[in-house]
Parts: sequence; structure tokens; C-alpha cells
Amino acid sequence: MPLILPPARSLLWRSLRAYQVYGANTDVGKTVVTTILCKAAHRRWRNEDTVFLKPVSTGPADDADDRHIQKFGPEIATKTLFQYDLAVSPHIAAPASNKPVPSDETLLAEISIFAARQASRGPGWLFVETAGGVHSPSPSGSTQADLYMPLRLPVLLVGDSKLGGISQTISAFESLKIRGYDVEMVLLFQEADYQNHLYLGDYFGQRHGIPVRTVPEPPKRPDDQGSDVLAMSRYYNNSSQSAELHDMLGYLDDRHTDRISRLESMSSKASKKIWYPFTQQKHLTPDKIAVIDSARGDYFQTLVTTTPAVQDPAASTTTTSPNNKALLRPSFDGSASWWTQGLGHGNPNLVLAAAYAAGRYGHVMFAEAVHEPALALAETLLARMGNPRLTRTFFSDNGSTGTEVAVKMALRAARLRYGWDASEPLGVLGLQGSYHGDTIGAMDCSPPCVFNEKVEWYEGKGFWFDYPVVEYSGGTWMVRDPVTGRGRYSYPSLSAIFDLESRASSEEAQMYEHQIRTTLVRLAEQGRKFGALIIEPVVLGAGGMLLVDPLFQNTLVKVVRQNPQLFSKATARTNTPAEDDRAWTGLPVVFDEVFTGLYRLGRFSAASFLGVDADISVHAKLLTGGLVPLSVTLASESIFQAFESDDKSDALLHGHSYTAHPVGCQVALESLKEMQGIEARGDWDWAREAHKQSEGTPKDAAAWSVWSPELIDWVGRLPSSCVAGVWALGTVLAIRMASADGTQGYKGGAARGVQATLLEGHSHEGDSDWANVPQWNVHTRVLGNTLYIMAGLKSTQGSIKGVESQLHTALLKAKNESHA
Amino acid sequence: MPLILPPARSLLWRSLRAYQVYGANTDVGKTVVTTILCKAAHRRWRNEDTVFLKPVSTGPADDADDRHIQKFGPEIATKTLFQYDLAVSPHIAAPASNKPVPSDETLLAEISIFAARQASRGPGWLFVETAGGVHSPSPSGSTQADLYMPLRLPVLLVGDSKLGGISQTISAFESLKIRGYDVEMVLLFQEADYQNHLYLGDYFGQRHGIPVRTVPEPPKRPDDQGSDVLAMSRYYNNSSQSAELHDMLGYLDDRHTDRISRLESMSSKASKKIWYPFTQQKHLTPDKIAVIDSARGDYFQTLVTTTPAVQDPAASTTTTSPNNKALLRPSFDGSASWWTQGLGHGNPNLVLAAAYAAGRYGHVMFAEAVHEPALALAETLLARMGNPRLTRTFFSDNGSTGTEVAVKMALRAARLRYGWDASEPLGVLGLQGSYHGDTIGAMDCSPPCVFNEKVEWYEGKGFWFDYPVVEYSGGTWMVRDPVTGRGRYSYPSLSAIFDLESRASSEEAQMYEHQIRTTLVRLAEQGRKFGALIIEPVVLGAGGMLLVDPLFQNTLVKVVRQNPQLFSKATARTNTPAEDDRAWTGLPVVFDEVFTGLYRLGRFSAASFLGVDADISVHAKLLTGGLVPLSVTLASESIFQAFESDDKSDALLHGHSYTAHPVGCQVALESLKEMQGIEARGDWDWAREAHKQSEGTPKDAAAWSVWSPELIDWVGRLPSSCVAGVWALGTVLAIRMASADGTQGYKGGAARGVQATLLEGHSHEGDSDWANVPQWNVHTRVLGNTLYIMAGLKSTQGSIKGVESQLHTALLKAKNESHA
Repeated sequence: MPLILPPARSLLWRSLRAYQVYGANTDVGKTVVTTILCKAAHRRWRNEDTVFLKPVSTGPADDADDRHIQKFGPEIATKTLFQYDLAVSPHIAAPASNKPVPSDETLLAEISIFAARQASRGPGWLFVETAGGVHSPSPSGSTQADLYMPLRLPVLLVGDSKLGGISQTISAFESLKIRGYDVEMVLLFQEADYQNHLYLGDYFGQRHGIPVRTVPEPPKRPDDQGSDVLAMSRYYNNSSQSAELHDMLGYLDDRHTDRISRLESMSSKASKKIWYPFTQQKHLTPDKIAVIDSARGDYFQTLVTTTPAVQDPAASTTTTSPNNKALLRPSFDGSASWWTQGLGHGNPNLVLAAAYAAGRYGHVMFAEAVHEPALALAETLLARMGNPRLTRTFFSDNGSTGTEVAVKMALRAARLRYGWDASEPLGVLGLQGSYHGDTIGAMDCSPPCVFNEKVEWYEGKGFWFDYPVVEYSGGTWMVRDPVTGRGRYSYPSLSAIFDLESRASSEEAQMYEHQIRTTLVRLAEQGRKFGALIIEPVVLGAGGMLLVDPLFQNTLVKVVRQNPQLFSKATARTNTPAEDDRAWTGLPVVFDEVFTGLYRLGRFSAASFLGVDADISVHAKLLTGGLVPLSVTLASESIFQAFESDDKSDALLHGHSYTAHPVGCQVALESLKEMQGIEARGDWDWAREAHKQSEGTPKDAAAWSVWSPELIDWVGRLPSSCVAGVWALGTVLAIRMASADGTQGYKGGAARGVQATLLEGHSHEGDSDWANVPQWNVHTRVLGNTLYIMAGLKSTQGSIKGVESQLHTALLKAKNESHA
Repeated sequence: MPLILPPARSLLWRSLRAYQVYGANTDVGKTVVTTILCKAAHRRWRNEDTVFLKPVSTGPADDADDRHIQKFGPEIATKTLFQYDLAVSPHIAAPASNKPVPSDETLLAEISIFAARQASRGPGWLFVETAGGVHSPSPSGSTQADLYMPLRLPVLLVGDSKLGGISQTISAFESLKIRGYDVEMVLLFQEADYQNHLYLGDYFGQRHGIPVRTVPEPPKRPDDQGSDVLAMSRYYNNSSQSAELHDMLGYLDDRHTDRISRLESMSSKASKKIWYPFTQQKHLTPDKIAVIDSARGDYFQTLVTTTPAVQDPAASTTTTSPNNKALLRPSFDGSASWWTQGLGHGNPNLVLAAAYAAGRYGHVMFAEAVHEPALALAETLLARMGNPRLTRTFFSDNGSTGTEVAVKMALRAARLRYGWDASEPLGVLGLQGSYHGDTIGAMDCSPPCVFNEKVEWYEGKGFWFDYPVVEYSGGTWMVRDPVTGRGRYSYPSLSAIFDLESRASSEEAQMYEHQIRTTLVRLAEQGRKFGALIIEPVVLGAGGMLLVDPLFQNTLVKVVRQNPQLFSKATARTNTPAEDDRAWTGLPVVFDEVFTGLYRLGRFSAASFLGVDADISVHAKLLTGGLVPLSVTLASESIFQAFESDDKSDALLHGHSYTAHPVGCQVALESLKEMQGIEARGDWDWAREAHKQSEGTPKDAAAWSVWSPELIDWVGRLPSSCVAGVWALGTVLAIRMASADGTQGYKGGAARGVQATLLEGHSHEGDSDWANVPQWNVHTRVLGNTLYIMAGLKSTQGSIKGVESQLHTALLKAKNESHA
């Protein structure tokens, strides 16, 4: 096996009908049922292979399940991947053996390779039998239900026909269901005393539309010896040729075909029924729509766009038949699903948190009410932000609504303090290229740009500063001039740029301060009025993945705070109690951390890079670890108090129906717990260490990334005809490609080539075992000429190395083309 | 037992530490473990009662679990509520007995009464032992885990120490967890061969922070006879006095106290950390904040505001001690949690749908991608709307964002068709008092009102018509004049008002048409330009629960559609292909069905009441059955095509990060399935029939409600000094109270009195069994002078009768006060 395994893949071929057999308990007859299924399949599809695969088996090899099948179904091919002689659970047997304990990744890879080889042989059946119950531990200690999730094999659940078996079967089903498994059928012995099949038939049929089928009870518990063998043989012969069995297999055969048809028709249906966000659909042909079957960890499992299926069955037995090609492949979720993902798709802890809150509350109204997850989340966020100004949590649904709330808060506070009339037009101060969301109020906080210029009700309200950006290019970290785009100052490392303490008295600091103050004086002279400063700290996301010089943002906040006279000449009226150092001055400062906060850049709060605290802070996206929409707008008490009065209509009359929905709050709590655990355990030490070594500094790099210094350096030194600049911080890597035609901004197309190469993907290198296993790819979104890739917070070094390798290939290709 | 039982309640008293014992399987030693716990509790708290309660027991009474406890723990009080001699599962044993099968409600009520009596005796312990595994069926056939949810007793899970027991224990835990149970401890036998306790100790400790404790294995399976009795006695004596056991009980005692402290501190913490939506917090003292511990079906379980706990333990043994009073009580969720609830809080089917999608996908990016739940939801909605115009589904997060999307769609389509310049100011046509959401773009669709008048960036863009409203008052259904508020036309029934076919040629229809046309001509003469007609069909929600004359809305849409010349004198340019009868004419018509759609008014689409189809339709709230935020904006192809071009920037550049999040889509699909099942099965036939009888018409009432005709008639005939008018449609009941001081609209306070009485609640009438059980109440929100109550789609007749009874009492009180 190669050291770094390719990502785990879901197993789906047109040719191979593969099912996973789970048991509701140990000793419910999994192997007996599977033997019947194998024999019946072989009987009906004689020209095809029927294969029994046992990934992990414990107990003496003579007694193992594959031997049982070999004895009673010699016509069935069997394979056991890992066999341990000790008759205990694999998590005890494996370490007790003298063999290395296979990791989960290894186990999944071995199954994939085996199944791929089998699929390449043409049509057939594969039954993968698990060990014990659904949550019985695997060699590594993971439970099977967690371990096998990525394969997404449809499940045959062997129910428990014994006393108590109703409960066991339903609970086992639920454990599978909440992990995204599709249970296609429940099978159990037709037992006369408890008749569990009757209750379960109604239960699964009515509640879940899942058929429950029975097989006769075996003659007795077979000990595989003497006369029992004869009785068992007869039993298998009878049951495997029954009409019921053939009917069951026909159903499973249909389900297999249906699943594929459904997958293959999805993109054309979607192109007719869906109105896509941020998409010009005139040019969106169905083949460009990614069909996502499932997602796990960092990867989608996407449908491979294939040539149409060969309809002639005879033609499908050769290895070159499209029927034998894998239909699904892993795609690295390079946009972190629009910047939301952090703790991995299908994270079982988040799933359970969501389900718990859903079961405990559903949703409950939040006006003048409180529930535990909302309060606990508010307390956790306020405490962890480390910003002594913030005391209040307002909940809404997404970054855009969170921003609208922030702006409503800030404008009111400013208007009251400065005594402005309600009719006086108020704007915001911000940065060019900023973007805060798609609702009109959030749009109005941004300058005119491609996102809003054709929106009928958009009306930008404010003034937006130019600012210097940071990039690595030609072997240097540069602060580029906002006007000329040329490098103006250069630094030995990104950490040096983030060392604001050292830079505080620099020439740049003085220049920034002078420019900002001069601009504000001019605006005041023009009579313009502002009610907030709103910025995305450190990185402007939708504006094009721009890394802003943190010294500029730091200076901007300071100048605004220290110069209230620039915003109102009137003696400031105040509605706050004694002005303490937590009250806002100048203007309320709003940080939109929707994209940059919650460890996206490696830190809980992106504000911590700037050395200044916000009065209002907006969070969303990663807040729920990437599961469901939720946003919070945190505010200081001096902002909050602006809305207190004896008149209800002075309150902040904003609130969505699902405000503080318990599912979102509980998931957010669990996410924050898991994120903080990652930081506390030092899971990123390898990345920090790599950047520290690279910078050659004795202290930790202030600005580190999971993307390797070697990659950044290599990319930054590519010819300027190919790459214009690069930066990486925390989980984000941004590469600005050079534009051949000079088009800049959102309409630039220079990154499209690299994006296309990444989407094509390539096979895992250097191991012939993987010859039959399809390539994997990297799914990205681009912003004009900039290609960005985001890792999750739990992405492994191996996963990132794999992406870097694909990126390396794609950039080499782009480099060669830029020379051509 | 009374015929209609009071709502199921969560059981929590300061005095009584009540725990529910669940088993990971049958035969895992539940009774043995419980016996040890009971004996140890009795040993440590000698002056208190320790009680063992078995709600349902099967098998010969001599063999029952309570006999086991009586034998080995004669110091323990035991009680079995329902005993069946047949040694099979209760769902078989109960019907086979000669006794009536208790309903789930009866079983819960019996447990509540028993526990309440016990709590009134002062401090003590109560262990409620379930039968079999967590999902073993109850007498009615419900599984125990579903049945006992509302009690929300903290759980002791007895784990399975046998082979396969790891899987059984984890699955059982998950089945409880996803139903909102709090498992406080896992207990199992210390077994040497499999050592499940070691694995489970790590698993539950690390993943869930739940302690796993062991007790020694019993001497052998006791048959309660001869020498075994001696061995068992010794075993119980030894184990129940061990330090470990005392430590465990100490832990459980602490958890009980902690839970209560947490609940009791929540409102004061919330008042400091939370910034509430739509709430003037200056006057929000902590006692006014509803502390919601959980919710199930139609009911919250809320903390009863009590006098402070008596600290002297001696004083707490009397029945009048506040320590013996119930801390939680059911509160009917009368606002349907801000109009979102339909299928009941904590609905297990929705929970499982949410968890499945979370496990299968988490969230996956939706731009140029598709996944099964999103596509299936789009297809289902478009098909079920029954509106042939609608072909496209755009996803967003809530009604407000859905409205912003609708307005962006409509304005663009109108501007392109009519060739207006981008700079030309465009408004919308709408209705006075309309409200479409809290983001600025949605706010701008509404006329100035209390919700937006103090919002700095609000700028109403449009013209809003006055309109006639419908109310029942003084024994007549009246259409009130919009200006004078006086009844102008009267009808024998609400259905007659909704009989638009009969009314089409009426005097009113002609008058409406004339008024509307005249107004539009005047607006055109003023040079005003409009890009959409946007209305809430049938009922204006936030505007004050106003039932609009459907004939007026019908006429408005028709006049707008038939008179394009009123909107543009230019020859209409068109970017749509051949204008068919599905293309928009005049103006794009937007229906905001966020509140009124999806069966809130008894029908899938509220538009069906109006006899006209929208070009754009917005849905949210009930879309997910009341679980998580999700919105769709459905649009016609002629709207969609306005955004197709060769320029990406012509596309609808709107999209939130969690667009079409799989959890929301899957839950919505499941909700629609359940809603349509309710309609298809005729679950509302009792309500339809009642209204049909009341109207005395041979055909079904077009306008029916779950609220009884008797109640509506009674309310509508209350003196006009008390009630100004009432209406009910589908699940909604709205009562406009007469204002003593003449204040109308949002600031009116006339409904506050009735709201307060409902919140006080009262005890269940007419049954002394309930003497010790606390009252329940009805939690409502009011809109100015209007009190409204919404049922869920699954509210039972009994539940509604109960609320009507509370309402009757409250209105009688208001009536008396209005005379005083």
C-alpha cells in the first residue's frame, strides 16, 4: 500500500450489484441469510460471479464465515481480507495478533480495490458481510457503522427474530440511518413465538417504506458437523430456490438499476427545475452540473460523467466496457462548500447534536423565551471571542441577515448619539471590493460591483477606502500599492507583516494614518454622514480573496475611534451610561467575520490578527461546523442600550421565524467544542511547525497555514506570465493567475484553466493496485482570476498533500500553456 | 380518567429525584441494577421514600419485576400500573387480555399522577423501569422510546455486557439521544470475557461526556428459589452498600440539583446575554422570559415561576412545601412558534430525516451542483402547487430572503420587458399593512409602519391599496369597509365569502374593479413605475391577522394582468419566447405564502382560495414542518428567462452559503409527505364536517377550521365592548379585542388581558385525580389588539377542545372586566 492512500470512495458500478449486510445484533443469522442470498443469486444469474466478502473476521479460520459459505455454497467465491484467530471483537483481536493493525483507511482501500477488480470482470453480485452488530468495533476501534459510511453501499439489515429483537432491529436501523446509509431491505427469520417480523413489517413499511422479508428458520444452530451438515444443505437448497428469494433479488436488482438511473437523470432534471444561485444558466448544460451522491470528511462523492451505458449485455463482460467503470468518485470539496465546511461532511457528532435538539425541541419560538442550546451558545461565543466589548448575542439565519442586523444596530446607535434626524441619509465606511451578503441592506453596505450593479433596488450607501493588499510573488512577501498594484514594501515572511507591534511606528503606519485622516476630513467637509465602519477583517472573500495589509485595517479602526469630531461637530449627545473603554467612540465598528472567523484563518476570531476589538461582530458559515444555516451578531452593551426605551417601537424590530433554532444552536455548540479541541490538542502543530521552520524564526509563525511553505514558495516563483501572486493563511490558499487579456475582477477568466484541470483529476500515483480504481479530483470555485482552495479544520496532512499534488500538476500545465 | 386527558407533562420536582431505567436489550440486568440502586438509595436516604415504578409488566404476576424487588428489597415501595399475565411483548399481551388497552396518553397520565403524588410526600427517589429494550413496543404498539419522550425523565441506560453488547448499547443510546433524552449514566455488569465496559467507558466518556459505571455480575441468573435466594440477597447487600454505589447516587443527586439550578438561572442569564428579536428589553424582566425545557407535539414544557426553594430540608416534607411543586408544566404553543409549527415539536420522522441528510451529506455547495433531496423537493413543490405557471425553484433561508429573491426576479423581468432604464426608480404594488420580512429589501416592499419606521435604511418603494376585511361579529360574517371599518356586506357563512364564482358578477366585484383601475390610472398619470404586484394571499399576518376579502385580491390580480398599458405606454418589448398563457402580463404577480401556505389555512397553497395563479410564489415557515430554516421562491419560465443571457452578470447573483442545505430539503420532503398524508387520510374530516353542519350546506364548507363553529359563534356574539370581531380558517383563530382607549394597530394593548389569563392557565377540570398535578397554560403572542391562536396540523380534537376551554374562561373574564 502506498503511504498516503487516495481518498475513500463510494462504490458504484453498473455491472456490480454490491450490498452490505449488517446485523441487528450478533448471532441473528447474518451468515445464514447471506449464504441463502449468495446461492439464490448464483442460481438465477449463473453466468455472473456471486462473491462473498468478509472484510474482518475473528475466531479460528476453520470456523470462519467464509468457510461456512465454502462448505454450503462451493459455487460462491469468497474472500476474507483480515482474519484474526482470537474469538473476540476485532478491536481486541487485531492488536493481540502479531500483524499490524489496519487503519480504517487501509480497510476501506482494500475493499475498494477488491470491489473494483470484481466490477472490472463484468456483471455480478457482491455481498459484503460485517461482523457482529452495526456498532461492533473494527480493528482500529472505530465502530463499523462509522467506518464504512464512505462506501455508501446499500444495506441489507438482518433483523433480530428473538425476544427483544424488535427493539434491537429498530435501534440498529436508526444508527445506520443517521449516518446516511440507505437500508434497502430488512430480512429476518420467520419465528413463530415472538413474530417480530409482523411488527417490524408494519413498522418499516409504514414509517419508512422499507420492505421486511423473512426466510425460514434454519434447522437448528448448525455446528457444521455430522448430520447437521445434511440438514443445513437441504435448508439452503430449499430456501435459495424459493420464489420469495428470487423475488427479493429481483427487487434488489431493480433498486440497483433505479439508483443509477436516478443519479444519471439528476443533472438534466435539475437544469429544468432548479434556478441556481450565482449562475448564468443559459450556458449551464447538464454535464456541467455536479451530481453529489453523498459527502464525507473533505470529499464529495460525485457522479462521473460517463459515455452512455452499453445496452448489449454481452458487450459488458470485457474490462473496457463502460458498464464496468466506476460511477462515483471522490471530489475534494475545494470551496469548502462555499466556505462553510470545517469539521467534515457527515460528521457523526454534529449529526447527533442536530438530532438531539430536533428530538428535544424541534424549533421553539425565541421572542421572550430561552432554551439551553441558545443560551449556552451565546455564553460560549461571548466568552471565547476574547473581546471585552461584546456582551450580547442576536441570532439570525445567515451572514447576510446577520449583517443587516449589525447595520441596523450601528446606524441607530450613531444616530442617537449624534442626534441626527431620522430623515438624514446615513452611510457606512468600508473597503473597496467588500461584500457582506445578498439581501438589499447588506448589498447597500458595499460599493457598486458586478454582484449588485444590475440589482434594481441596490443603492450603495457609504464611502469605501482603497487599501494595500499582501501577496507572495517572485520570492518575496509584498504589500502592494492600492492604486498601481505594484509591490511597495517587501517583507521576509507573512508573519512579519502580521507583526503589528513592530510595524506600529513604521513609515507605512504614519502614511496610512495620514491618508485615512485626510480622507475623513474631506468627507466631513462634504457634509457626508456615516453611522458605522464595517470591514471584513484580514481577508475580503467575495471581493476576490484579497489579503488586506492588517496594519491598514488596524490604523483605520484606530483613526475612526480616536476622531469622533470627524463624524459629528455637534457636542456628542449620548444615551449610554458613563462612557467606559468598552463603549464605542467615533463610529460603531462592525467586523464581518462571516467568512474569516471561527478558525477559517486558523484563529477563533480573525479580529485577533488586527489587535483591535469590534463593537459588533457577525458570524455564520463555520458557526455550525458546516451543517445548517445560523448566524449571530454579537454586540456591545453600549450598542444594545441605544435600543432601550419605554417605547416598544424603539426596540430592534428584527427577527426571523427560526431565530435561534435549537438544531442550529446545538450543532454550533458541538462544533465550537470540537474546534476548540482541535486547537487545544495541537492538531495543527505539524502545520505551525512547518511554517516556523520555513521562516527560520525562533518563535511560532504568527501567520501559518495548512498549505505547505514549499508549495507557496514554488507557486510564488512561477513566471509572472502564469501566476501573479499567492498567499495562504490558516485553511485558505489563494492563487491569483496572470490574466492574458488583462481582464481583472469577477469577470476575469484566468483561473478557469487550472480549475478545469483540477476538475478532471488524475489517478493515484505510483501503485499498480489502483490501476482499476478511478481517478479522484478537486472541485473548486474561482473568483475572477483567483483560484482558491480551502481545507477543513480536520483535513489530514495526507489529504492536503494529495490536493497539493493535483494542484502541482495543474499549475505545471498552466505554466507550459502560458509559455506557448 | 376524564375523557379528554390534560396534555402530557414533563416530570420535575425539587423533592423527587426521578430517573427512568432503559435497557440496551432485554435480559441485560435492568431489574438487578435497579434493585441495587433502590436499595442503595434507601440505605443512604433512610428518611425518604425510594420507589420502584413499573408502568407495564408482562408475564405471570408472581414472576414480575416488582415481586423481585419486594423479595430482595422489602424496604422499597413498588408499583406496577399495568400487568399482563402473558409472557410476551405488551403490544401482544395487552390486546390478548380482557382489559381495555391503555392509550399512550393514559399511560403517561397514570405515571404523572403517581409521580405527582409521590413528589407531594416530600423528598425521595423514583426509578421508573421500562420493559425490554428501548424500542420494545408498549401496549398501544408505540415503541417505549417514542412513548415516554414527553416525560423527559433523565435516563439510566443499562448496557449490555454480553457478546455484541457494545453495538447494542451504542445503538440504544442513539435511539434515545435522537429523541432528546438525556442519558445521565450507562451502567453495566463488570464482565471479564468481553469487557464491554472498557470500550464503552472510553466511547461514552470521550464522545459524550457520559460516565460509564459497573456493578458486579450477579451470582448467576437467579430463579428466585431455594439457595439462589440466599446468594442473591448477599449479592444485593454487598453491592448496595459499596462506596461506588453511593458515589453513583451522589452523582445522580447532584445532576438532579444541577438541572434545576440551570433551569432556574436561565432567564436571568438570558436577560443579560441575549438580544431578543422584536422585544423592548428595557421592560423584559427575567420573570417574563419563558424557560422552555423541551417541546413535544403542540406543547412546550416550561419552567413554572416558583417562589424560591425552601432551603430547610425539614420544612420540605409537608405537602404545602414549594419543594414539592411541579417545576415544569405543558404550555400550548399558541403562536405555533411564530407560525412555523405544523407536524409537532420533536416529530421523530422529521428528526430522522434531518439526521439522515446530515449523515449522508452534511451540507454541500449548491451552485452548479445537485443532490437528491433538493431536486426531489423542487419537483414535489412544483407539482403539488397546482399552478401551471411555476417551473423553477430557487432556494434560500427564510421568508425575508425568499421575498428579496422574488422582488429581484420580478423587477428585472418588468424592467427588461418594458425597456426601463436601470436608473429608473421602480416600486411594487401591494396592500396596506402588508409585511414580507425584516431585511431591508423585504421591508421596502411594505408601507411605512411600526416595524420599519425607525429603521435608518428603510425606504418604502411602492403603492399600497386599502382593502376590505372579513370578520364574524354580532352573528354575521361581514365584509368591512376599508375606510370606515363598518360592515358593508354581510354573508351567511365564511364559505359564501370564498365562493368567488358566485360573487364574480356581484356589485362588489364591479366596485372593486372600478376602484383598482381608477387608482392605477391615477398612478400612471403621476408617472410612477411598478415592477411587481406582491401580496400575502387571503391573510395578512404581521399586519394584524387580517382576513382580506378574497374577491378583492382576485380582482386586483386580474386588473393588473389585463391592463399592461397601465404600467408601460411603450410597446412592450419582450425577452420571452412566444407569449403563452403562462407568461406574466401587466406585472409579475408575487404571492408571499410564507405564512399562509402549506396547510396553515387548510390547503396546500393559499392561492387556491383566490382562483388566480402567481408568477412567483414564496414559501417558508411550515415548509420544514417547523424544524429548521428553509425557503423557496418558485417562479415561472417567463420570469426565469429574463435572466438568461451571454453575460454572467445578467444572472440572478443571489445565493446564501447554505442554499438548499440537504438537512432542510430532506426535512421539507418528509414534511410534505406527512402533510399530504394528513389530507389524503381525511384526518381533518371531523373539522370539515363540523363546519359543514354549522353552515347547513349540502356541500363541504370551502372555508373550514379546526376551531369549532360553536366557539367562533360564541366569541363573535360577545359584546362589542369586549370583542370587535373574530375569524377562523384552517389552523388559525384570530380574535380582535375591542380597544377601550381606541388605540389600533401594533401598539394596541386590548389583547394583553386575555393573553395574561391564558398564560396563567388553569387546572384540568372535573377530576380529583389531577388535584396534585399542576395546571397547564396557553402561550400566545398578540398583534396589537388581536389575539391569535394557531393549532398544528396534527393537533387532536382533544387538544383543541382543551385550548378552547381555556380560551372560554379567559374571554369570560375579559367580558366581565369590560362591563366593570
